[in-house]
Amino acid sequence: MKLVNYKLKYDFAPNRMGMMLYDNVVDLQQASEQMHENEVTKESAYPLPSNPDEFFAQGAASLRCAEKVFSYIQRNQPKLQYKREEVILGPPVPNPSKIICVGINYADHVAEMGSEISKFPVLFSKFNNALIGPEDNIHKVSATEKLDYEAELAVVIGKKASNVKKEEVFEYIAGYTIGNDTSARDLQKRTVQWLQGKSLDHTTPVGPWLVTKDELTDPANLSIQSFVNGEKRQSSNTKHLIFDIPYLISFITELITLNPGDIILTGTPDGVGMAMTPPQFLQDGDTVRVEIEGIGAMENKIIDM
Amino acid sequence: MKLVNYKLKYDFAPNRMGMMLYDNVVDLQQASEQMHENEVTKESAYPLPSNPDEFFAQGAASLRCAEKVFSYIQRNQPKLQYKREEVILGPPVPNPSKIICVGINYADHVAEMGSEISKFPVLFSKFNNALIGPEDNIHKVSATEKLDYEAELAVVIGKKASNVKKEEVFEYIAGYTIGNDTSARDLQKRTVQWLQGKSLDHTTPVGPWLVTKDELTDPANLSIQSFVNGEKRQSSNTKHLIFDIPYLISFITELITLNPGDIILTGTPDGVGMAMTPPQFLQDGDTVRVEIEGIGAMENKIIDM
Repeated sequence: MKLVNYKLKYDFAPNRMGMMLYDNVVDLQQASEQMHENEVTKESAYPLPSNPDEFFAQGAASLRCAEKVFSYIQRNQPKLQYKREEVILGPPVPNPSKIICVGINYADHVAEMGSEISKFPVLFSKFNNALIGPEDNIHKVSATEKLDYEAELAVVIGKKASNVKKEEVFEYIAGYTIGNDTSARDLQKRTVQWLQGKSLDHTTPVGPWLVTKDELTDPANLSIQSFVNGEKRQSSNTKHLIFDIPYLISFITELITLNPGDIILTGTPDGVGMAMTPPQFLQDGDTVRVEIEGIGAMENKIIDM
Repeated sequence: MKLVNYKLKYDFAPNRMGMMLYDNVVDLQQASEQMHENEVTKESAYPLPSNPDEFFAQGAASLRCAEKVFSYIQRNQPKLQYKREEVILGPPVPNPSKIICVGINYADHVAEMGSEISKFPVLFSKFNNALIGPEDNIHKVSATEKLDYEAELAVVIGKKASNVKKEEVFEYIAGYTIGNDTSARDLQKRTVQWLQGKSLDHTTPVGPWLVTKDELTDPANLSIQSFVNGEKRQSSNTKHLIFDIPYLISFITELITLNPGDIILTGTPDGVGMAMTPPQFLQDGDTVRVEIEGIGAMENKIIDM
C-alpha cells in the first residue's frame, strides 16, 4: 500500500494519514471506522490515529492496522475518497526523530566527486527544518550559489531498531519513498563537516508516499533517475549501492537506535550538477524530478527566497 | 533562575518542569497555581505546562511566566519543595528538535587535534538518542575503544530564530547549561563525517539545569574545566571561543531555523584524552566531571554496555 500524509486543499484542518486507492486518497482513520462498523476484529478495534506523528509513534501496531484497512477498502468501496487534485501531500513522515543520510554510496558518484570509496558508510544528518513535501517548492537562499540535486532511495523505519542483524533488517522497515538530498555545495564544502550545506530550511523534498515493504519487495533492484527541467541528469539502479540496505541498517543500529518514522537517505548515484562540465547548479524556476521504479515520481520547483 | 527537568525518585509519574530554590526543587506548575491563587496577573493566568516538551514548545511565553513564578517563590514560601536527594534530574530539554555542535572552536584544541582554524564554524549534529541527564551513566558500547570527553558550554534557544543579527542574538537565547560532547574517536575518524562517533546511544549528558540569561549575563567569560576521576584534564575560559555565541547563532540562523529548546554545543577547549601522551580514553567505572563558572557541575560515570 501507499501511505500518505495529506491535507484537503479547501479545508483548514490539520494534516492526516491517508492511503492511495488507485489515484484517489482515502482517509485512514475514516476508513478504519467504516471497517470497524462492518468487520469487528482485533485490528478494526485499534484506535488508528489520524495524526501522522502519532501514527508513526505507534509503529508496527499502526502499520498492521493500516494493512487491514487497505485490504478492506479494496474489497469494499470506502464511503469517502478524495481526488488527487483535491489534496496536497506532505512528506510521508512529517517529523522523524532522525534523518540519517549516507554519503558517497554509489561508486560512479564517488568517482565524479573526486572522493575515495570509504571502508565504512559515511553518515551525516539533516534536521526537520529541511524537510518538505513532494509538491513543495525548494527554497534557494542567497547564502548559496551552488544548489544541487541528489536523487535518493529513502528507507522509512517501522519499529524501534537497535543492534539489528543484517538478516533481520526487513522486519524493522516500514517501506520506501523518494528523497532529494538537495545540497548547497559551496556551504557543504567550506568546512570539513557537511551539515551546513545539507540542512538549509525547506530544501529536502520526500515523497510522494511511503510504499510499504509488502508492495516493494526488492529495494535492491530499482531504477533511479533525476531530471532537471525535463533533461535527464542521473540514471542508475539501487543495485549499485556500495553499502546495501541490510548492511546500512545493521551498521547504523549498532551505534544509534532508530525509531519508527526515522528516514535513511541511502545516497545518490552519479550525475549531480556539480560534476558536470561546466558545473550546472539549480536556479530560480528550475524543476527537479526524481523517479524511482516501484515508487513513482516527485517533482519540485526551485524558488529564490 | 535555574530550570530543571525532574522526576521524583519515589513516584512513577512522568518528568516535569521545576526550578531550583537554593538547594531545593520547586515544581513549576504547582508554584504557578499557588501564585495564581494569591496574585492574579496576566502571567499567573498562563496555563504553564508541567511537561518539559510542552514548556519549551511555547518558548518565550513559558519563560516569561516562569520568571514571574520564580519571583513569587522568592517572596513567598512555596507550599511544596523537594530536597535535592528526593529527585532525579534529566537533561533540561529532553527532546530538542536539534542538537547542533560546533567543532574545533578553541584555538588550543584545534592545535592539539592537528586541525587548522576553520574560516567558518564547523557544524555537525547529534540526535536525541545520545542525550542523557546530568546524573545518568554514559554508555560505552563495544563498538568503540576510544571514548573521550569534551566539556562544552551549551546554549539553549528560547524562541524561534531565523536570520538573527549578531546584535539581537541574546533575545533568542533562553539560557545556558553544561554539555559533555562525548566522542568515540575511532568511530568519529573512520569516515570523513563525524556523526557516527558523536551520536552513540546514551552518551551525551547535558545539565544539571538551564541557567536563564538574566542570571548568567556574560557567557563570554566563564571558566570551563573537566576532570576524569578527579584529575584535571581541561581548563580554559569561554572567552577563548574562536566563534563566539553571537557569531554562531547569527551564522546558524542564516541557514537553519532554530526552535525553542534547541541546543547548541559551542565546542571544547584543549585537554581531551586523545591528545594526551599517550592518549587516555574513558573506561568502565571512570567518572567525568565538567564544571562551568556560573552554571555549576555535572558528573557522569562511564559504564560498559
